[in-house]
Amino acid sequence: MSLRIGIAGISGRMGIYLAEEAAAAATLSGGTSRSGAGPAGAPHFPDIIALARESDVVIDFTHASTVQAHARALAETETPWVLGTTGYGPEDEIAIQEAAKVIPVIAAPNFCTGVNLVLLLAEKLGAVLPASQYDAEIVEMHHRQKVDAPSGTALAIGRAVAAGRGVDLGDVIASGRDGHTGPRKDGEIGFATLRGGQIVGSHTVMFTAGDEQISLTHHAFDRRVFASGAVRAALWLHAQPAGLYGMRDFLKL
Amino acid sequence: MSLRIGIAGISGRMGIYLAEEAAAAATLSGGTSRSGAGPAGAPHFPDIIALARESDVVIDFTHASTVQAHARALAETETPWVLGTTGYGPEDEIAIQEAAKVIPVIAAPNFCTGVNLVLLLAEKLGAVLPASQYDAEIVEMHHRQKVDAPSGTALAIGRAVAAGRGVDLGDVIASGRDGHTGPRKDGEIGFATLRGGQIVGSHTVMFTAGDEQISLTHHAFDRRVFASGAVRAALWLHAQPAGLYGMRDFLKL
Amino acid sequence: MSLRIGIAGISGRMGIYLAEEAAAAATLSGGTSRSGAGPAGAPHFPDIIALARESDVVIDFTHASTVQAHARALAETETPWVLGTTGYGPEDEIAIQEAAKVIPVIAAPNFCTGVNLVLLLAEKLGAVLPASQYDAEIVEMHHRQKVDAPSGTALAIGRAVAAGRGVDLGDVIASGRDGHTGPRKDGEIGFATLRGGQIVGSHTVMFTAGDEQISLTHHAFDRRVFASGAVRAALWLHAQPAGLYGMRDFLKL
Amino acid sequence: MSLRIGIAGISGRMGIYLAEEAAAAATLSGGTSRSGAGPAGAPHFPDIIALARESDVVIDFTHASTVQAHARALAETETPWVLGTTGYGPEDEIAIQEAAKVIPVIAAPNFCTGVNLVLLLAEKLGAVLPASQYDAEIVEMHHRQKVDAPSGTALAIGRAVAAGRGVDLGDVIASGRDGHTGPRKDGEIGFATLRGGQIVGSHTVMFTAGDEQISLTHHAFDRRVFASGAVRAALWLHAQPAGLYGMRDFLKL
Repeated sequence: MSLRIGIAGISGRMGIYLAEEAAAAATLSGGTSRSGAGPAGAPHFPDIIALARESDVVIDFTHASTVQAHARALAETETPWVLGTTGYGPEDEIAIQEAAKVIPVIAAPNFCTGVNLVLLLAEKLGAVLPASQYDAEIVEMHHRQKVDAPSGTALAIGRAVAAGRGVDLGDVIASGRDGHTGPRKDGEIGFATLRGGQIVGSHTVMFTAGDEQISLTHHAFDRRVFASGAVRAALWLHAQPAGLYGMRDFLKL
Repeated sequence: MSLRIGIAGISGRMGIYLAEEAAAAATLSGGTSRSGAGPAGAPHFPDIIALARESDVVIDFTHASTVQAHARALAETETPWVLGTTGYGPEDEIAIQEAAKVIPVIAAPNFCTGVNLVLLLAEKLGAVLPASQYDAEIVEMHHRQKVDAPSGTALAIGRAVAAGRGVDLGDVIASGRDGHTGPRKDGEIGFATLRGGQIVGSHTVMFTAGDEQISLTHHAFDRRVFASGAVRAALWLHAQPAGLYGMRDFLKL
Repeated sequence: MSLRIGIAGISGRMGIYLAEEAAAAATLSGGTSRSGAGPAGAPHFPDIIALARESDVVIDFTHASTVQAHARALAETETPWVLGTTGYGPEDEIAIQEAAKVIPVIAAPNFCTGVNLVLLLAEKLGAVLPASQYDAEIVEMHHRQKVDAPSGTALAIGRAVAAGRGVDLGDVIASGRDGHTGPRKDGEIGFATLRGGQIVGSHTVMFTAGDEQISLTHHAFDRRVFASGAVRAALWLHAQPAGLYGMRDFLKL
Repeated sequence: MSLRIGIAGISGRMGIYLAEEAAAAATLSGGTSRSGAGPAGAPHFPDIIALARESDVVIDFTHASTVQAHARALAETETPWVLGTTGYGPEDEIAIQEAAKVIPVIAAPNFCTGVNLVLLLAEKLGAVLPASQYDAEIVEMHHRQKVDAPSGTALAIGRAVAAGRGVDLGDVIASGRDGHTGPRKDGEIGFATLRGGQIVGSHTVMFTAGDEQISLTHHAFDRRVFASGAVRAALWLHAQPAGLYGMRDFLKL
């Protein structure tokens, strides 16, 4: 029988994607939602405990305020926990670590496989390629509705390169060049932002020397890429021993 | 016998490239220079008249201060004139127009074939694709020594798109996005700047709608592309009747 | 009151897209279909005459066998005709030309704005850039289900470049290089094919010289791009005098 | 005092690049050549022993026939050995391994930093991304004189992806698609070849799923990239203990 996946927070846009991806890759056991409603055909449960009892793994993209209660409920029911909630605090982290003594937990701000791979490889490239010879630049493009620049993912890629180089991004960032900029500084990490159409998200980090250039690009074609990555992580997590995992563990890099 | 090309200003970097390209594509008759020196093997002439008498066409990348004298000399000797000098004033323009009554003259700030094609096609795309549906963005990359952003060519591409749309670039430009930008404005023309390595110059203009994207890219691999374009224009100009031409005429678009 | 657009063949996948795009951009008057059914909310008409009487313009993506009957019906009702049907013969063409004496008709195998622009610009680039110096190559990518290579659109781009150069594509095509190919031939037009994922269609034509490269890329993000182009053509066609038009006329190039 | 680098085979094209790069990054001690000649200003030595005595490290891009003699000479003089020679046999390998008991040796068919990074990262991506979901395709572009397709580097990238997936490239390769290919096979690794201009070498490997795409690109701008990588390896090798190293060790991946 295939793995039963439960979705905490099944009625939001991400919850609907998660339900569809879970049903396609395994068995969707159902979900919880504040409204008590959700996508047609998905059983609804009154609370996380009830959901966990009918699930082999729970995917949770709800809200920071639920972290402590969910940690206790999933540890009690011994249900592996895929945690995509963001913005939680130090006490929530302690609750997560306590749960991870009993169950496997994977926590990440972004479950997109490709973005996580780009972050890991960008850090390696930052570590290997001397900053004095290889100029690192990041260019991203998103849909015309996006209100901030650069994107959070672009900044995360920049932090990964900076980590590989052993520096702080804040000390070397050059974003939004315009006008008289002067020559490029050694070790600078540059950001350029494009906006247009309904582009879900494209990111490129390039390392350019005088004689060669290495670049790494990620295109997201569909917003559900975040959901499909979480479902893949759920399938993997189920077979792991208790512990706290990140995308690096899942991606085996 | 092959066309004899003379180079006014043969001793500078551009003059040396021009001499090499002229020798490769036709016959290099020689050149003038303030120092009286130039590349080995190229005959030197004391002045433009002497050069013109031994040339079927003269390529002139000298200085705005020479325009009026050169106009008279080349008209007098009936020698076609490829004029790449920039920064000249209204009286110089009158001198050029007078000369063009007698000889064919082609004047352009940039003789790179590809850049001129991109300018022409960008204007057409701007004219055909509704600004409300197709978001125009321009991204350029140059070597790390470049001190200004965006490049002059990127701005020229932006002006071409704006001209196609019947607007002024200054009214719609969005360069160097950073921080809270708000959603993209309808009709905006965006610019993004990358710097790194020894990139001679790469420019892309893209028009992105919800369901499709058309983009046009130019890569310059070698600074001599400006010289080879001027030599190609010289070969073409020699067969034209008297008149003042631009790159559009040469490129037959 | 906004333009009333009728869809001949409203029940197929393209018909459904056309109905949605027509409703979004103007007023959807309804459609015909062999089954008598179609998308919910769209009025159905028993035949093309009935549809035409309630429409200011008819978009027709049906079948070659209907061309002569539709030509007569639309001429009789004086309804402009957007014709996306393919595979029709010489007698059908005569019928189309007869109708075009009375009504405006635009006929094209592909109404995608971007692809048509790429075809036009590729022909211009082929005409302007000497084949001996600028090597033309075309690379395309499509989803993993596609069974033929190169795509029809890639071949159309190749024919456009060849037309610009005054040669036949069949005489200069080099598709699917593999193994010992020998050096590239002067004037060759090369094709390379990529397959993967669910890519709707990406095409690039590049002209590469020793010192520069100009390339032109089209990405289709959504199959409905063919429908949205036909609706744009319909809005334009309605204001034209009787005559037979192509995408070149619509795109004013 | 800076490291003294000696070049075995200093008179060929690669030897001249190596001499220039060595002089720029350290001290060029000189070289050997069959002709006894080489670049101006570089001291010439009659044999490898004489060169080794004046060098802290020797870079050797000569010929398979010299491997055994060079192995003995460099071990005897205790001089680290950067070995770029290719095509040697099993007995040569034994000689290299013997030398590596006494001196540090780094051997590689290609010292280009970026290409080696792409090989390593392509293998990781192959290992992490399920072949059933992520279609791997490789596209390369080289100058018009190149006579074979795909390039050796493209095939090496393909082998790296295949190794990551635990399969043989020969079993899954699809190169030069043309005509009726049928749908893409699961696990296939596709190759597409472009030729044009004087492109030194561009390679992209892309992994395309239904909802995202990760791609990795390398551009070589200048043939001397192979020489600069060997000089960087020499600077690193000098500080290593005796042993046989590859580019993976140098690149710390």
